[in-house]
Amino acid sequence: MNMMHNRMKANSILKQIMRWYIVTPVIMCCFLLVAFHTTKASDMVNSYSIHPSEIRDIEGVKISIDLAWTLLCGFLVFNMQAGFAFLGAGFLQKKNTLNYLTMSFMDFCVGGLIFWAFGFALMFGGSYLAFGLDAGNTLVGYSGFFLSFGTFDYSTSKLWLFQMMFSAAACTIVAGAVAERIKFNTHIICSIVLCGIIYPVYGHWVWGGGWLANLPFGSGMRDFAGSGVVHGIGGLIALVAAWMIGPRFGKYNPDGTPNMFHGHNLSFVVLGTLFLLFGWFGFNAGSTLGSTDLRVSIIAANTFLAACTGGVALMYITYFDTGKFDIVMTCNGTLAGCVAITASGAYVPHWAAVAIGFIAVIILRESLHFIEIRLRIDDPVGAISVHGANGLWGLLSVGIFADGSYLGVKGLITGSGWQLLSQFIGCIVLMIWALGIGYILFYILKKTIGLRVPVNEENTGIDVYEHGISCYPGFN
Amino acid sequence: MNMMHNRMKANSILKQIMRWYIVTPVIMCCFLLVAFHTTKASDMVNSYSIHPSEIRDIEGVKISIDLAWTLLCGFLVFNMQAGFAFLGAGFLQKKNTLNYLTMSFMDFCVGGLIFWAFGFALMFGGSYLAFGLDAGNTLVGYSGFFLSFGTFDYSTSKLWLFQMMFSAAACTIVAGAVAERIKFNTHIICSIVLCGIIYPVYGHWVWGGGWLANLPFGSGMRDFAGSGVVHGIGGLIALVAAWMIGPRFGKYNPDGTPNMFHGHNLSFVVLGTLFLLFGWFGFNAGSTLGSTDLRVSIIAANTFLAACTGGVALMYITYFDTGKFDIVMTCNGTLAGCVAITASGAYVPHWAAVAIGFIAVIILRESLHFIEIRLRIDDPVGAISVHGANGLWGLLSVGIFADGSYLGVKGLITGSGWQLLSQFIGCIVLMIWALGIGYILFYILKKTIGLRVPVNEENTGIDVYEHGISCYPGFN
Amino acid sequence: MNMMHNRMKANSILKQIMRWYIVTPVIMCCFLLVAFHTTKASDMVNSYSIHPSEIRDIEGVKISIDLAWTLLCGFLVFNMQAGFAFLGAGFLQKKNTLNYLTMSFMDFCVGGLIFWAFGFALMFGGSYLAFGLDAGNTLVGYSGFFLSFGTFDYSTSKLWLFQMMFSAAACTIVAGAVAERIKFNTHIICSIVLCGIIYPVYGHWVWGGGWLANLPFGSGMRDFAGSGVVHGIGGLIALVAAWMIGPRFGKYNPDGTPNMFHGHNLSFVVLGTLFLLFGWFGFNAGSTLGSTDLRVSIIAANTFLAACTGGVALMYITYFDTGKFDIVMTCNGTLAGCVAITASGAYVPHWAAVAIGFIAVIILRESLHFIEIRLRIDDPVGAISVHGANGLWGLLSVGIFADGSYLGVKGLITGSGWQLLSQFIGCIVLMIWALGIGYILFYILKKTIGLRVPVNEENTGIDVYEHGISCYPGFN
Repeated sequence: MNMMHNRMKANSILKQIMRWYIVTPVIMCCFLLVAFHTTKASDMVNSYSIHPSEIRDIEGVKISIDLAWTLLCGFLVFNMQAGFAFLGAGFLQKKNTLNYLTMSFMDFCVGGLIFWAFGFALMFGGSYLAFGLDAGNTLVGYSGFFLSFGTFDYSTSKLWLFQMMFSAAACTIVAGAVAERIKFNTHIICSIVLCGIIYPVYGHWVWGGGWLANLPFGSGMRDFAGSGVVHGIGGLIALVAAWMIGPRFGKYNPDGTPNMFHGHNLSFVVLGTLFLLFGWFGFNAGSTLGSTDLRVSIIAANTFLAACTGGVALMYITYFDTGKFDIVMTCNGTLAGCVAITASGAYVPHWAAVAIGFIAVIILRESLHFIEIRLRIDDPVGAISVHGANGLWGLLSVGIFADGSYLGVKGLITGSGWQLLSQFIGCIVLMIWALGIGYILFYILKKTIGLRVPVNEENTGIDVYEHGISCYPGFN
Repeated sequence: MNMMHNRMKANSILKQIMRWYIVTPVIMCCFLLVAFHTTKASDMVNSYSIHPSEIRDIEGVKISIDLAWTLLCGFLVFNMQAGFAFLGAGFLQKKNTLNYLTMSFMDFCVGGLIFWAFGFALMFGGSYLAFGLDAGNTLVGYSGFFLSFGTFDYSTSKLWLFQMMFSAAACTIVAGAVAERIKFNTHIICSIVLCGIIYPVYGHWVWGGGWLANLPFGSGMRDFAGSGVVHGIGGLIALVAAWMIGPRFGKYNPDGTPNMFHGHNLSFVVLGTLFLLFGWFGFNAGSTLGSTDLRVSIIAANTFLAACTGGVALMYITYFDTGKFDIVMTCNGTLAGCVAITASGAYVPHWAAVAIGFIAVIILRESLHFIEIRLRIDDPVGAISVHGANGLWGLLSVGIFADGSYLGVKGLITGSGWQLLSQFIGCIVLMIWALGIGYILFYILKKTIGLRVPVNEENTGIDVYEHGISCYPGFN
Repeated sequence: MNMMHNRMKANSILKQIMRWYIVTPVIMCCFLLVAFHTTKASDMVNSYSIHPSEIRDIEGVKISIDLAWTLLCGFLVFNMQAGFAFLGAGFLQKKNTLNYLTMSFMDFCVGGLIFWAFGFALMFGGSYLAFGLDAGNTLVGYSGFFLSFGTFDYSTSKLWLFQMMFSAAACTIVAGAVAERIKFNTHIICSIVLCGIIYPVYGHWVWGGGWLANLPFGSGMRDFAGSGVVHGIGGLIALVAAWMIGPRFGKYNPDGTPNMFHGHNLSFVVLGTLFLLFGWFGFNAGSTLGSTDLRVSIIAANTFLAACTGGVALMYITYFDTGKFDIVMTCNGTLAGCVAITASGAYVPHWAAVAIGFIAVIILRESLHFIEIRLRIDDPVGAISVHGANGLWGLLSVGIFADGSYLGVKGLITGSGWQLLSQFIGCIVLMIWALGIGYILFYILKKTIGLRVPVNEENTGIDVYEHGISCYPGFN
């Protein structure tokens, strides 16, 4: 009794010390930062590209409209995190739900800080898309670090917020494919590298004034809202990660045939898909960065049509196969349609959105089969096929269906094949970059902190081991 | 062993053939479409009513503001699908949850394609509300098919997207009333007819320049955001459908007294109501099709007041009756208030919104009682009373409470009864149209593919039979 | 048999009478209202500050943009109700879930009507922020009652709608802290007083042209989006309420050590946090009341950065303590960051948002410990620490980190301490006001209708007793 009491007391003192061990340097850091910035505060005041209260003409009004549009669309994209959370939680086993939710939650928390510190600077430095982003070359950008140092402005913060949500989405795509077996910290490090290097660098090449956007074929490589930059990157990193980590225990029989692990709450799968579609309107239509570009309504309509087509097509294709109306496949079909139209939504007419959505589900189906049966890679939520395979198809679809009515991007249907060549190069580069860096990253992680949780943890459920509690304490 | 192997092989070959049987014609179709449209692509480029980059004056800026407003409100209306999914899932038994979710998901997928193909053209052809919608008469429109053929424009896509979400809502209303017993394909056909004919034709009469809007009494029939067009149509088709299909097995005792089937997750009912209210702001305030119509804030405030009144009133009325604070009734009361204010939100002062919301719950209560006890129609979620009965009340409320401060619509409170006459005619026409066509539709369906699932399927639960899996595999 | 039949008949007649007893006066009231207002309807038509169709110049366009922005942000704030519902439901025991959901649902229903009737008038009367709000002094406002009497205008309804959502949030904060033991009607009365008096009066002092905003130190007290006005008020009333009601049965052992009551669905806690963050963008960035104030993007980015910092910091601080990745604490950390940045988001640079978020979680952690262990106050969801303690920290943070780049508010980092003095006075006044009035309110309630449900009800679960049904009937 007495010993225990002493031990508790010692523990308590230790915790007190720990507490101040953490608190003190933090407070010191804050004050150092304060001291450092105090001297610069007055410069900041004068660093605006336009003063908030100075809207007096049409140009000022247009800035204000575009600001509202982009921010609201960015908020919608943030709401996709709720969609991913629902979707993943529904797809997984009850015993690992909390682990997935924690990973996807930390993706945007950690990703947000990293993308603020340097991801954004690597991606948009030298793009001149906002105030102060004027240092960078065609390979990488180097201005906008911490949104400070002469880039503190409404326009920079606007671009950062919207793009931040995109990089978080890319991380969360990976979280689904490696769920139920990855170590928590391994995933966090993967998210840091993804948001800090992999995503921004490829993003710079496509959106930040880099070399892919300036390819001499057609209009250069075009990825309107990120089929490749966001979904392709996410899906291909997911491919490497799921392959390196290996399948869940019991997924494959000794003869190589796969077993099915049912999700524990399919209503969450449907709800997650609905919230993802809701956010996807912002994802695609918001990528104009303003509603003074009237193309936004055509983009939104294309997004919706591709999603509808994907859902209907995969529902009935699956029905002809299995005799069941498989809502889980339907949801994945809808998402595949959305991923594919993400690159091309602005450039194609409405009938092409339907065609792109339809082809997306054919690709999804073949890819799911190929990855599960041939490659024997275990992807619990189908992220590799939905986001990876259809991300690549989305890039190609621009080169096929673009009708020249927006920014002069002309695909095969206008009789020119040059744009398709650019898109094809973009795909190849994407694959080399994502698979290559992804392999290096996971190889290093494997050799250092390890990739997988211990086997007993995997069998009992990660929630209780890593998070100290099950997801539904009240139901047990 | 060997035989089984052969059979599997045969199956696999069959599937391969099936696969190409599906894929080939699709690819061919796509290429035909491509060929067909390629020749027209250049015309498309020139078909814009205003070029995206040509915003130089106040008029252009106003177009841009209204575009942003309408699209964002349309996205909110789409989010009502999540609300319907939560609400329906919560109201139903666990064994049929997935079936309802699949139906409501397919409602907007199938509905989206149908409304794109011809529903929109029937509804808005001849309305001149967007570019190219210039063919149509007072009975039906006939321009805007596939949003093509000279109507490919930002303005048409904007109107389509917003209205599309409305027609999906009408379908989903039906899904609730027929849940737990309807055949899946029967519901899909009902949604196709609803989105393709029933909703657009009545909608044309009211919003597309049709004869009801031009009645010579008062300002003609007015239904601001669709109490009648969306909720009335949905609710009355639900009435016919639920009546023709018959009650769920065990709903009525041999002496005709009803039994209560509890929903399986009442937290979903509350959450669904919250998401519906969230979307309803877009539904009502977005129906101005632009925030340069400053009335939007009054509409939003009216919507919220009617919802609050409905919730508070029904909570305490039910409490006086039963001694319980019945949250399910409260949620329905809130929705009833929203349905009623949908037609009149723009025309009435705030105090009238409170009155309309209050009367709505009285009507809801009487209607629920009348339909369950007198008509002995089984409506699991109360859709007929919430959307049908209060849809009609919403139409009438315009004729009573409109104060003349918006577009000159003047109701009884200004001393004139003509507007009420127009609204009354609108109600009668709505009932004849919806109940008549609805009856014909379900009569044909009954005689052909049948309406109900087999009785053993109903008893065991539709999820496992039709969808191959239960909604919560992990919990069993 | 016969007797029972008679009794049922008598009951039925009684109910019929009851029904008309309720309906008749209501209909009469409506008609009286009609009669009363009919005479004034024509005046209303002419009471507009600007006619809806009269947008012809830059000023009109700016009004229209700001209207769209404020309304859409207001809708997002409404969606926080879904976040609170998820969060609270997840944190609580299964047997009391429905009770909490009903309380939080009624908060905005009842609050909406009260804030319409007089809360808004007390808060913004005399602020001149919208049409007709011209009567009021520095202590309290008195114009805008019922949004009528010469204040019926788009601008007044806009301001009301946005502010309405804020007052509902304050009520719902209280609901979390008193959950699982408060009487339903006691909570409703608390919400009425909160929305009708406590919140509006303090709000008037800060936002309605009252004396706190005009303190002679610095720029006067500044609370940008309501760290103090909304979260501080809500959190401190929650403190008084939870203290007066006492802890849940079994929360504290005889020796004063607390027991842990696990929430029943931790996935709801994560989802709730995501929806709250989604709404928080509207909460903070919408508080400019327009996107023609270009500061909105900086506010949104600050909000996100503080949230991310809060989440990451508390996750790893907890990990060093317990060895577990505690997602529940992480969610609370994120929310604490949001609460703290709410007051200062517009005034501080991005690095300060990170610092504010970090300090917020230190405060959260100490406060949780202090309230649970030292004060022995039982707060099931941590509302007092998240909203109360960090609401106060948010107020102070303006005085420290404001860099003078927005509206001239200059904190310590610019070398001036006057603003911090103003903020400090605001904190003291907030504590005196909220704790004082809160104490009086709950003292009266205790002496009259009582605060707590009976002990057997608490043990069995409030849902079945007060609401007549459990939350998951299908699962039992």
